[in-house]
Parts: sequence; C-alpha cells; structure tokens
Amino acid sequence: MAYRIEHDTMGEVKVPSDKYWGAQTERSRNNFKIGTPASMPKEIIEAFAYLKKAAAYTNTDAGILPSEKRDLIAQVCDEILEGKLHDQFPLVIWQTGSGTQSNMNVNEVVSNRAHAIQGNKLGEGTPFIHPNDDVNKSQSSNDTYPTAMHIAAYKMLINVTIPGIEKLRDTLKSKSEEFSKVVKIGRTHLMDATPITLGQEFSGYVAQLTFGIQALKNTLPHLSQLALGGTAVGTGINTPKGYSENVAKYIAQFTGLPFITAENKFEALAAHDAIVESHGALKQIAVSLMKIANDVRMLASGPRSGIGEIIIPENEPGSSIMPGKVNPTQCEAVTMVAAQVMGNDVTISIGGSNGQYELNVFKPVMAANFLLSAQLIGDACVSFNDHCAIGIEPNYNGIKKHLENSLMLVTALNPHIGYENAAKIAKKAHKENTSLREAAISLGLLTDEQFNEWVRPEDMIGGLK
Amino acid sequence: MAYRIEHDTMGEVKVPSDKYWGAQTERSRNNFKIGTPASMPKEIIEAFAYLKKAAAYTNTDAGILPSEKRDLIAQVCDEILEGKLHDQFPLVIWQTGSGTQSNMNVNEVVSNRAHAIQGNKLGEGTPFIHPNDDVNKSQSSNDTYPTAMHIAAYKMLINVTIPGIEKLRDTLKSKSEEFSKVVKIGRTHLMDATPITLGQEFSGYVAQLTFGIQALKNTLPHLSQLALGGTAVGTGINTPKGYSENVAKYIAQFTGLPFITAENKFEALAAHDAIVESHGALKQIAVSLMKIANDVRMLASGPRSGIGEIIIPENEPGSSIMPGKVNPTQCEAVTMVAAQVMGNDVTISIGGSNGQYELNVFKPVMAANFLLSAQLIGDACVSFNDHCAIGIEPNYNGIKKHLENSLMLVTALNPHIGYENAAKIAKKAHKENTSLREAAISLGLLTDEQFNEWVRPEDMIGGLK
Amino acid sequence: MAYRIEHDTMGEVKVPSDKYWGAQTERSRNNFKIGTPASMPKEIIEAFAYLKKAAAYTNTDAGILPSEKRDLIAQVCDEILEGKLHDQFPLVIWQTGSGTQSNMNVNEVVSNRAHAIQGNKLGEGTPFIHPNDDVNKSQSSNDTYPTAMHIAAYKMLINVTIPGIEKLRDTLKSKSEEFSKVVKIGRTHLMDATPITLGQEFSGYVAQLTFGIQALKNTLPHLSQLALGGTAVGTGINTPKGYSENVAKYIAQFTGLPFITAENKFEALAAHDAIVESHGALKQIAVSLMKIANDVRMLASGPRSGIGEIIIPENEPGSSIMPGKVNPTQCEAVTMVAAQVMGNDVTISIGGSNGQYELNVFKPVMAANFLLSAQLIGDACVSFNDHCAIGIEPNYNGIKKHLENSLMLVTALNPHIGYENAAKIAKKAHKENTSLREAAISLGLLTDEQFNEWVRPEDMIGGLK
Amino acid sequence: MAYRIEHDTMGEVKVPSDKYWGAQTERSRNNFKIGTPASMPKEIIEAFAYLKKAAAYTNTDAGILPSEKRDLIAQVCDEILEGKLHDQFPLVIWQTGSGTQSNMNVNEVVSNRAHAIQGNKLGEGTPFIHPNDDVNKSQSSNDTYPTAMHIAAYKMLINVTIPGIEKLRDTLKSKSEEFSKVVKIGRTHLMDATPITLGQEFSGYVAQLTFGIQALKNTLPHLSQLALGGTAVGTGINTPKGYSENVAKYIAQFTGLPFITAENKFEALAAHDAIVESHGALKQIAVSLMKIANDVRMLASGPRSGIGEIIIPENEPGSSIMPGKVNPTQCEAVTMVAAQVMGNDVTISIGGSNGQYELNVFKPVMAANFLLSAQLIGDACVSFNDHCAIGIEPNYNGIKKHLENSLMLVTALNPHIGYENAAKIAKKAHKENTSLREAAISLGLLTDEQFNEWVRPEDMIGGLK
Repeated sequence: MAYRIEHDTMGEVKVPSDKYWGAQTERSRNNFKIGTPASMPKEIIEAFAYLKKAAAYTNTDAGILPSEKRDLIAQVCDEILEGKLHDQFPLVIWQTGSGTQSNMNVNEVVSNRAHAIQGNKLGEGTPFIHPNDDVNKSQSSNDTYPTAMHIAAYKMLINVTIPGIEKLRDTLKSKSEEFSKVVKIGRTHLMDATPITLGQEFSGYVAQLTFGIQALKNTLPHLSQLALGGTAVGTGINTPKGYSENVAKYIAQFTGLPFITAENKFEALAAHDAIVESHGALKQIAVSLMKIANDVRMLASGPRSGIGEIIIPENEPGSSIMPGKVNPTQCEAVTMVAAQVMGNDVTISIGGSNGQYELNVFKPVMAANFLLSAQLIGDACVSFNDHCAIGIEPNYNGIKKHLENSLMLVTALNPHIGYENAAKIAKKAHKENTSLREAAISLGLLTDEQFNEWVRPEDMIGGLK
Repeated sequence: MAYRIEHDTMGEVKVPSDKYWGAQTERSRNNFKIGTPASMPKEIIEAFAYLKKAAAYTNTDAGILPSEKRDLIAQVCDEILEGKLHDQFPLVIWQTGSGTQSNMNVNEVVSNRAHAIQGNKLGEGTPFIHPNDDVNKSQSSNDTYPTAMHIAAYKMLINVTIPGIEKLRDTLKSKSEEFSKVVKIGRTHLMDATPITLGQEFSGYVAQLTFGIQALKNTLPHLSQLALGGTAVGTGINTPKGYSENVAKYIAQFTGLPFITAENKFEALAAHDAIVESHGALKQIAVSLMKIANDVRMLASGPRSGIGEIIIPENEPGSSIMPGKVNPTQCEAVTMVAAQVMGNDVTISIGGSNGQYELNVFKPVMAANFLLSAQLIGDACVSFNDHCAIGIEPNYNGIKKHLENSLMLVTALNPHIGYENAAKIAKKAHKENTSLREAAISLGLLTDEQFNEWVRPEDMIGGLK
Repeated sequence: MAYRIEHDTMGEVKVPSDKYWGAQTERSRNNFKIGTPASMPKEIIEAFAYLKKAAAYTNTDAGILPSEKRDLIAQVCDEILEGKLHDQFPLVIWQTGSGTQSNMNVNEVVSNRAHAIQGNKLGEGTPFIHPNDDVNKSQSSNDTYPTAMHIAAYKMLINVTIPGIEKLRDTLKSKSEEFSKVVKIGRTHLMDATPITLGQEFSGYVAQLTFGIQALKNTLPHLSQLALGGTAVGTGINTPKGYSENVAKYIAQFTGLPFITAENKFEALAAHDAIVESHGALKQIAVSLMKIANDVRMLASGPRSGIGEIIIPENEPGSSIMPGKVNPTQCEAVTMVAAQVMGNDVTISIGGSNGQYELNVFKPVMAANFLLSAQLIGDACVSFNDHCAIGIEPNYNGIKKHLENSLMLVTALNPHIGYENAAKIAKKAHKENTSLREAAISLGLLTDEQFNEWVRPEDMIGGLK
Repeated sequence: MAYRIEHDTMGEVKVPSDKYWGAQTERSRNNFKIGTPASMPKEIIEAFAYLKKAAAYTNTDAGILPSEKRDLIAQVCDEILEGKLHDQFPLVIWQTGSGTQSNMNVNEVVSNRAHAIQGNKLGEGTPFIHPNDDVNKSQSSNDTYPTAMHIAAYKMLINVTIPGIEKLRDTLKSKSEEFSKVVKIGRTHLMDATPITLGQEFSGYVAQLTFGIQALKNTLPHLSQLALGGTAVGTGINTPKGYSENVAKYIAQFTGLPFITAENKFEALAAHDAIVESHGALKQIAVSLMKIANDVRMLASGPRSGIGEIIIPENEPGSSIMPGKVNPTQCEAVTMVAAQVMGNDVTISIGGSNGQYELNVFKPVMAANFLLSAQLIGDACVSFNDHCAIGIEPNYNGIKKHLENSLMLVTALNPHIGYENAAKIAKKAHKENTSLREAAISLGLLTDEQFNEWVRPEDMIGGLK
C-alpha cells in the first residue's frame, strides 16, 4: 500500500496515500486495535458534519472565519452528509473516551479534502483549511462529541425509532378494532379465565406502545440541548460572544430539528443523563415489545398442540412435510432486539455514572449503544409490522374450541340456577372431561336452549376498551 | 403456640389464635418459606387499606354494600393505616406473582378484625364482613394488586423520593452560588485543564438533579392511572356501572393524590410499564448521584496525598492518630444506593417484560424493588444532604496550590507574548518541575508584575453558569 | 427511652441504656437513616462472631492477648452465634462502604456484653475488654469485613443454596426417570415438532442444574480465601508473625469449612472478585430456574385452553367455581426470585468494579445482595421442590391428545408410502382439520392397522438420554 | 443489479446473480431488514464451516454420503475458512432465533459454490450437492447453530481472549516485581493510609487477572460440549449410530480444540447455560479491568493537580501548549469495554433464561454478544498492555512528595515517643499544614536524625506479597 507522510507535534506518521485523514487519526488507528475497524457509528460522523458546518457559519458570523473558509468547510461537510466520504472514518468506538480522535478524524478529513477540492495533492503544500485552527475553531472535543451524540440520537429517534413504533402501534390499533367482536377465552397465570375479545387483548398492546412513545417523547427536550459552546471544561473559553446560542440555531436549521443550546454546559460535558434518560424510554419500549411478541407467538402456537388462537403470516418455508408449522420468526427477532436493548441500558447506565470532574469519558460507548438500540427498535417494529402484525388473523376454529370447552363460562349460570348448581356442573364437566353443556344437561339442570340463551360469552366482556 | 381452626374450600388450617388472618394467608405462609418472613412491603399493605376502603365506599354508593359494612371495613382500613395491625401481614414477596395471597391477607384481616371489633371471638360465629363477598367486592387480585403498586409507588415518590432529591438539589444550588467566585483548576480525563469555579462545578450537579426530578415527574401521569375496575382480566366483569371512575375518585380523595382510572385496563393488568417507566427515572437519578458522590469524594480526598479541594464534615471518628482523615462515608452510602438501584432496574425490567396474556405475574418483585429504590434514593439524598453536602466548604489552600501550580494557565499568556513563547515557558516549568511564574521570569519573557496582571484564572472561566 | 452516655474521640453520645453498643454504633445509626433499620444481614454479624473469636485465639497464641480476655471474647461471640444478641446490631447496609461501623458495632457489643457478664453495669467503670485494643486486635475493618463476607457467603452456599438446588435436581432426576416412557409431542419455536419423552424433557432440567451446581462449586476455592491479616491496606501492618495463616485455621475449625488465608491480601481488600465470581454462578442458576419454571407452568397450563401436559399440585384454593384452575404459584415465586438474582448480579458487578486503590467501598451492598440471592435460590428451590416438582404428574389425556393430533408424526410414514404421499396426508389433515389417521385412510393410502403399526411415536425418540 | 431465479417450497425468489446463496437466504435478507446488514458474526460462519465439514466426514464414515460429496463439501468449507467467501453471508443477527437462516445460508452457499467449482453456471442444472439432503445431512438448525456458538466462542477465548489477558497479566506481574521496592502512600476511602509498595499495589491487579483467567478456564469444559447430533429436539432423530461422538471428534480434529459431544442434548438445544456461564467469567474480568484501569488513570493523574504517582506512555499529542497532559486514553478504552461487557452479560442472561420447551430462540443474540465481549476483552488487554501497561514507570517525585508529606507515618513514632506525643505531632502538622518532621522538631520531641531513623516507610509495608 502506498503511503504519504503526515506530521503532528509528536512527529511523522505514515498515512495511506489515498485517505484524507491525517496523523492523529492514523495514530488512533494504530493505538486502538480493538474489535472491528471503523466501528464508530456513521451517524456520529454525520452529526459531526452538521456541527462543523454550523460552527463554521457561526464563526464567520462572529467575524473570526473568512467566508471562503466557511464555504469550503461546508462543502466537505455536505459531501460527508451525502455519504461520499464514508471510507474516511476508520476509527473505533474503543478509543479515547472523549471521542477526541473521531473529532480530529473529521477535522483532518475536512482539511485534506478541501485541499484536494482546491486542486492540490495530499501531503503537498499547506492546506488552506487548518484542521484545528479552522475546522475545530471555537470548539473542543469535549463539547463537540456530546453535541454529535445528541444530534445523532435525536435524528435516529425522529427518523427511525418513533416512526417504526408508531407504524406498529397503528397496525395493532386497527387490528384491535377489527377484532373487537372476536370473543375468546382470557388467561391469567397462563390458566383459563373469563372471556375477553381479541380486540381487547390487542388494545393492551396499543396502550403499551402509546405510553412508550409518550415516554420517549418526554425525553426529547433534554436531548435537544447541545453542549456546543462549552469547549474544554464547560466555561466556553475561546468562544466568541453569542456563540452557543447561534451555533445551536444553525444546527437546528441544518437538521430541521429543534436543537437549542444547553442550559448548563458543565452537566452537558461531565454527564450524559440525557442519553441515560432517553435510553431509559427505549428500554421501556423493549420491555413492552417483549410482552407483545411473546403473546403473539404463544397465541399463534400450534398448529395442533399449541394455543392456536391467531394465525400469523408464513414468510419462509417451515417444515417441508408439515404444513402449518409457521415459526414465529419475526417475534423471535423482536424479542432478541429487546434483550439487546435491555443489556445496552446497563452499559449506558454504567457509562453515564462514571463521569469524573468536568468530563465523562464513556462517550463513544454510550453513543454506540444508544444508536444501536434506537435503530434496532425502529427497524424491528417495521419488520414485525410488515411481516407479521399486518397479517395477523384470528384462528376462529381455535378460538371457538377453547371458548366452548371452557369451564369458566359456568359463572354465567349463577343468576339462573344458583352458585351451588353452577359449581356442580363445572365439577362434573371437569371430572368427566366433558363440556359444560353436556354436564348441565345430563344433570337435568337446564335445557340445551337455556344453555344457549344463558351462556353467552359476548355478554361477559364488559364495556371496557 | 395456641391455634384456632380456619376453613377454606380446601379444608381446615391451623392459624395462630392471636392473628386476624385466615386460612389462605396461613396456607401461603406455609407454602412460601422463601427469604425473610413478612417481606411484602408495608407500603403495599397500606395501599390496600386505601383501596379496600375506597371500594367499600364505591360499592355502597352503587347500592351493593350496606353502609354498616362500609363503615366497618373503613374502620379496619384506618387502623391499618395507623399502623395498629402491622403484625398481621406475614407474607413474603415470593408468593403467587399476582399478589393474590396478600390481597386475601388484607381481606381476611379486615373480616376478622371487624368481627373482633363487634365483640366476637376469633373463630367463633360467622363474621358480619365476608372477606371475599364484602371486602373484595367488585375486585379481583388482578386489579387490586397493581392498584396497590401504583398507590404505594406514587406515595413514596411524593413523600420521600422527590422531597429528598429536591432537598439535596437546593443545598447544592446554594453551594453553587456560594462558591461562584472560587476559581479552581478544571479537570478532564482526570488531568489538569483550564480553570473553572467551584460554583460552576456544583452547578452541573444541580442541573443533573433538576433534570432527574423533571424526568421523574414526567412519569407520574402514567403512574396515576389505576387498574381497579378491571377485575379478573381487564373487562371489569362483576363491577357496577361507573365503578372504575368512582373508586379512583375515592382513592384520590383518601390519599390526597391525583389518581384516575386507567385508560386501558388490559395494559394495567398485563403489563406494568408505568413501574418500568418510573423506575427508569429513578435509575437515571442513581446514575447522577453516582457521579456527584464520586466527584465529592475525589475532591475531598487527602488530607495530604489526594486532591483536597473541598472539605467535608467529619461525622464519625476517623483515625485516632491521624487528624484530617475524614472518610467520605456519606458518599459511600450514596454510591452503594446507586448500585442497588441500577440492579433493581434490571430486575424490574425483566419482571415487566414477562407478562403473559392478561396478567403479569411478577407484580410483588416489581413492587418491592421499586419501593426499595424510591425509599433509598430519598433517604440517601437526605442523609447525604444533612451529613455532607450542607457542610461542604472549599479547601482554599488546596485550591490555590493546584491553581498556582497549574501549567494550563500559560494559555493566558498567548495574547501577550505569543504562542511559541508561552509554550517555551510551560515546557521549561514542566521539565524543571517549577511554577510557570518562575519559568517565565527565569526565561526573561516577563516580569513578576506582568505575570500577576496577565495570568488571572478568574478571567478564564467565561460567563457561563 | 432511657439513655446512658458513651464517649469516643469526638465526644459524648447518648445510647439507649439497654443496648450493648457504644458511641460509634450510635453515631452510625444517627448518620445513616437510609432504608429499613438493621438491614445489615445477620449472617454478616455471625461471621464477625466467628472471626472475632478466631482472632482472639490467634492473638492469645501469639502471646499478645491474655487468655482471660480470649475466653471472654469467645463467650460473647458464642452468644452472638446462638442468636442471643440479635437486637444489638441496629446498623444498615447503607453506611460506610468498608463496613467499618458494623465492625465497630461488633467490637462495642463484645466489650460491653463482656462488661455485663462480669457483673458490671453498662456505662460504669472501664470494660476489661477494650473494643479496639482487644476485640479488634490485629485487625482492621478493611480486612475483617471482607473476611465476614466470605464466611457468610460460603456458609450460605453450603447450608442453604447448594442443598436446595440439589434437592430440586434430585427430584427432577427421579421424575425424569419415572417419565422415561411417556412419549409426547416436542416443541420448537413453540410449534409442534417431533416426539420426545417427558423424561427427556426433564433430563434437560437436570442437566442445567447439575451444570449450575458444578459452576457454583468451581467458585468456592476463590471464596475460601480470607482477607484477614491484611489489616488496613493489605500489608498486614500490626499483625504478629503467622497471624494470617493461623487465624484462617481457627475460622476453618470454628465453621467447619475449608477456609484458608488469601494468597494476595491486596486483591482481597481492594477487589471482591470472589463475590462477583460466585454470584455469577448464582445468576447462571437463576437463568436455569427461569427456563425450568417457565416450562413447568406452560406444560401445566389449562385446564381446558392451555397446553395441559402435566399436572401440578394444588396448594391453595383456585377459583371457587372453576375446578382445575391450579395456578402455577410456585413457578411464579421461582421466576420472581430469578429476576431478583439477575438484577442483584448487576448491583454486585457495579460494586465490584468500583474499588479504588487499596479498598473497595461497596462491601455491604455486595454482601447483602449476595446473601439475598444465595438464600432466595436455596429457599425457592426447596419451596418449588416440596410444593410443586415432587408432585408433578403427566396429564396422560393431554399428552395423548396432542400426540395423536400431531401432524409431525407423518414423517414416520416416509419409509412406507414415500415422502410425497406422506406430505399429501399431512396437507389434507391440516386443511380439513382432521387427524393424520383419518386423512390417511380417507386417501386410501393405508389401513387403520397399518397406521397403528407404522406411526409409533415411541420409535421416534432416539436412544438419547 | 443482475438476478437469477431460485426456488424453494414457497416459490420463486430473485437472487443477485453473483452470489452463491439461494432462496431461503434471500427471503431472510428481505424479511429481516433490522440493523446493519451481514451482522451475523463471521466467527459463527467459520464455525459452521468446521461443523459442516465434520458432518460430511461423519456421514461418509457412516456410509450415508458418497466420498465425492464429502470432499466437495469439505473443499467449500475450507474456502470459507480461508475467508474467500466472506461476502456470501449477508444475514443479520435479528433473524429467526434458532439461527436457521444462517444455517441455510451456509448450506446454500456450499451447494452453489460446489456447483460452480464443478464448472456449472449458477441457476443452471441441479447442483450435485443438495443444501438440505447433503450439506445439512444428519443435522438440524437446532443442533448446528448451538454447536457453531460453542465452536466460535471456544476458539475466540483460546485465540484472543485468554492470550490477551495473560499478556497483560504477565506485564503487570513483571511491573509488580520491578516496583517491589517503591514505597508509596497507601489509600483507603480515597484517603491517605499506611504505606505500601507500588509493587504490592500491582500485585493485586495480577491476582485479579489470575483469578479471572482461572474462572474463565473453569467454564471451558461446559463450553466444549457440542449439541451436534441432537437434531430437531434433542433426540437425535435421523442421525446414524455413533454420529454424535464421531462428529465431535472430527470437529476436535479440525479445530485442534478438545470438543466432545454434549452429555445431554436436550439441555444443549433448549438452554445455553454454557454461554451464560462462560460469559459470567468474562464479566468478572471486565469488573477486574475496570478496577485496574481506574487505578492506573488515577495514579497517573496530573501533571500538577492530580495524584501523579506513575507515568504512563504518551501515545498521541495531548495539549499542544501544555506538556505533561498525557490523557489516559488506553484506560478509557478499557473501561468502555468493561461497561460494554457488563451490559452484554445482561443481554446474554435474558436470552439464556428465555428458552421454551425444546428450543432456546435467542441463539444469535447470545452468540453475537458473547463474541463481541470475548474479542473486546482480548483486544483491549493487548492494546492496554502494548500502549500503556508496558511503559508504566513510577513517578518518583510524586511518590516521594506524598510519602514525605503524609501524616500516617506518625504511627511509626508510637514505640519511641508514645501514642500521645505522636498524636500531638500529627495534629500540629495537620493544623499548621507542615510536615511531620517540622512539627516533631518544633515540638522538641525528637531530632532530625531520630526522625530519619524512626520514620522509615519501608519498614511499614510488611512481608506480604
């Protein structure tokens, strides 16, 4: 491989000649060979592109950066956002805990790419845009990286997570309405209980996701607060007047999202409670999804020896010889995602709890886990929606069989024949493994017609949603 | 020990003759010898007292319970709330997952205690108040226990947790203001950085707790929704018209808290996302407290070989021979509480994710962990406040020593003597282990007076809060 | 309440006159009002009694403690072990993280109780046994508390946890053998699969618990290493020659357990990886128990609309009107315990990871969570064993119904009528919701007798255990 | 993009024409668009290559697979192991929970690649090697995937994790010996305590890692047990006699690792306690690494306002103007890895606890988290070793300053001037912020020479390792 020589204050470094990154990126690549290369999430890199562009605009407005530099910086940032430079960010999550080296990676790429745009050869001449003095102007790793975390997290929630959950929630809601007359056996402790409609059962899932979405939205105001302007320790040293507010405005403008400057920059650098808070809501949603997907696979179980009250779409060949073996594969993907998110929550909490003095140095691991959770939940909801929820149908045969067999329906006879007679019927049916109807008639306590008239599960489901 | 015989549908049970509980409680006591006896939180029992009384009032209003019965039930419930019957609830957390047996424990105690109030001997005659038909009227374990969870959780948050956090937050806020002029070295990566005030440092803690309190308050609306009225499976079977709304109103009235009936009773029985959600906020606060208490103990470390920038109160004898060894014991208690809450969050999430069909059967473990976390956080904040935070003072000697020694201050010289000369000074001071002042003067780059004039840490702390 | 005045280096403290504890205990009681009083586990107090007695013997052997003092100390320690002084230890978990105050609580109680044994009145005269100079001789909180942790943890594992798991494992093993001929449908993805015996299914549970017990036993050697002799920082300052080894021998003798002195005292004070390691095995067992108890409750579900392949004992009244509603309450208790232990594991890991320099100050929270987990697992296994596992019976009707209905059995026809014909039968049966037998005969592909001869689930279960 | 048409029992599927995978892989790709494509760990794919080759050999030995087929299957498996087909495995973790689709991915690639090796064009003619009948012969997803998990996990532990930890442990051990005479202040509760050597401090880290390695090795026997031969439900249906043992022997031979067939196949399919167990040890090591890396960064903190007792290598430019600001970036990477592993442990535990009946369907998420943890720990240990631990040097100035300043040394004077006089000296020194020496001399209690003779920290460090 061909190399060029780059320099930094520690001396020379050999950098692959076709890469825009510089000495500090290359040092990090060599010093942190931990896990898969380039594991730093691309959403963080994109968020840096937004904030570097915003900083350039703000610096120019403040009169401390020439507009030519601003425009050139912005041009490279736009290229990053278009995905054109995706192979220029080789660093890993497991680097310095402030994310400094990824900040420098962006600074170096912007500088060298601008140099190339201007028609120069990499490694020759002095770049017009200096990575520190220009691209990083009025910034520090300590305030840029947490800003990138909030931008990337907020965008993922708005673009992927919330729409995914809402899509699934809406499908479940329409299923809940569609199934509002499908009376079935209820179950508590996994045991037969009084009837319920399939629609009511699904309404519980809808309520869970609606509460989850609300909980997630409750966390957005904290997440909308950006550290940028705090610089090294939160005091904002080396920033022009009004910088914090203005740079947040530009970021809001470029992303289309309601970012504002953080009320307290010290908290914003030294703690990442906004990430902890917001991921707490993701974890709650994971908990809900585990319940929902578990119910769906139990209700769909069978085809002969399970519960068999709903039918889910068949998306891949099951057993070649056994028709009806439709494995609940989407449920399995969702519940695996839920387990992942619940573990990620612990990682994020531990990271969040370990800030020291003016800086938390668990930034990259917190960012990576957050983005993974947010994407997985959004994607999994869409996948589960499109390939499972949308196609769920009642298995009327199974539902009817369970309902008719049920002994719980005997409670409907109490007003007509008294509690004691009703209990007699149930006990006989249980002992002899017959239906209530058979037991009731054979005991001479009522007629077939009376059974039809009095035992009406549809009258036992209340008026509750 | 003396016993009397109680009966239930399975037959006879020997119950200690001086106890009000009945057969089902005694069976549970015998069947679940797991861990410490009587571990079911007393706050849950008290919450049951509120809801049983409210149910009695609602039933009487609906014309299905005579007012004499209502008043007798209410009288025993009031005794429970006054703590008079505290030894009548022997059951453990590790029982049936619906908490049915604790519901029956309350029903049985109310029935038998009422029997005694009426002048009868336990075990003789038929109680006027029937545990199921009267005390449990229009209820099921499946809706009472989750109602008790919400009542107990909400009360604990309002009475203990939030006031405790607010107390600490307010103290830290006044400290932050008090220390607003105390300029000290900042630290990032545990390494010396540019100056900051001690007040700014504390303002970060204030921001953390303020965000945490807000996050916790965001969860209260979900927690205010009560399952009562859902009965066995969420359909509200066997409840009179208007029951759900009315019973919630009575509970709100008796507790003085804004409880309402749950929008969706199926969610309220089968999932406990409100508990997951609210505990997520407690966990966030635990994360914040870990950071704050860790900072305090690092800042207070010494007396000679630590950081030594603050002084914390001495609450217990340290080393008999070594003055100044003030162990940060309150910090240690707080961080242990934080670790507990972070683990409890996993327990609660696992419990919450495991609902099946119409019922979640991890109710008692979720309730117990929630209440433990909520109380520990509230108590630990008060303890840390009263025995540590309130007495924190700057250690001016330590602060001054670090600030004067610091090499970071050299950045203040850049505008006066140029970056290169400034760097020369810093390098000389580092190499020779002297102060910047000494290095600067010995290099002949400035005078003592100029150093005093130009190197003013108090000008490096920005205007940020 | 009556008080006496006790003194320490900070001055006077009022102590309840009927209590043996002294000034430092009382200060801790006042300074740490966090959670339930006296939450420090009694097993820790007992472990202190063992080690104080052992230290006294070792000190006397080393010629630095008169034998009269040794014997008096030992006498009080024995009283503690007999439970006679259980109300003398009022401190909480949430105190100093080294457990110093509980160490002092024991020292003070031994001193004052010895004073009383000698016929003196508390608070009058100078105790013959000095809490520090005698009871705490050759010790520090920093090595006593971790020693107490190991003693208490090891004892609980040997006395409660392992016997409990083994009891359940043995019952499941005998059930596995008893059920070795009970052929039933297998299930994967919750869907019907090829047959298996109920005994094979149970053999998986046996294997899980056997592996779990082995994993737990693998951790005992680390747990058997005692910190005692390390004193304040691990160097063993102020201990006589041979102290570490000798005191471990006495502890081994008094407890009957194979304790030895720790190879490295610095690790033993500053880290508690032995606790982390051993609790990791408890967590693995919790994971196994969750699977086992979940399977049992699913297999027992019904009575009419569930899986219904096993019958579990009825321990408490179910529905008064619905016979056969036997709630799997023991399974619920076990799975709640599993959720608790999985959360405790996080608490313990966080605690364990936070040692600093020569001391870990999360000792009490680690000890309390370990002991809770160890007891709950042991107790829950016994409860589940005695009230559930031991009474599990196959539900032959349910098993037969599922097996006969199953379409998976069609695979047995392949060798006789070819894959394509077999598939035809299965598809017809699935479509028309009939049995394989009916479909096969109606297609004219075989006779009733041939079906009986060829479709023999008992031939499909392999020779595997 | 060019496509060819592939078929399965559900019909036609368009597959990219340059890919070897078939219809089922393509369906999975379309049905599970969750997270990053191709996230299924490559180590799992490689493990499949080992086991498919071993199965082919075993099948040929059993007379049920022609040797030409065996050799062709083996040839493709070898290509996979050489990394030649790395772009043929596009599936994600978040698929069916049994990993069936990745098993089919391998089956299809082997079949089609063999077809190509034989000179055929993809999609034309019938492959000589059938994906199910040949490549998957005597196998099921249900036993292959867990076998692949164990192979991949065991290999990673042996090749990456254990060597990495041992490398670091050995470096720390040699540092411990090198620093055995470097006496320094000890610290407990972050406060000054009695002296210790730097070597003793490091010996604690060595002990932690040595215990951790042992704990990890204790888990290998369980992990060495392979599910292969259990097929669909653990009974081994459709396997030839002796298959389980023989296939394990071939896997052992091909991998050079001591794999054996699992004692109980039902456990091996339905539970993954071996993964839980082994990851528990990884988590313990993460806990240890967190402690060690935290200590190193605290000890290295400074350059002026920290603890400053060790010097760590400078691997990247720190502050351009402030010499000596060497951020502990390797410590930060290690502690982030530790946080990740601690979270992964929860994911794995939740996955492991959720097996149902004959199958656990959290296999891919458990595998992915295990492999991530195992690799990160190994890599991070090497990185921390090479770029930090190996270059750690005592900061003699810092160590000396703290030791000389320390008030704890006063305890050395007790035998010479009595406890009371010693305490007087300490109190004076503390109050006046002077050294013990100065205070002692100014009090006239001893001479400078006596101080030198009596206060010798090197005599206070005991004989303990």
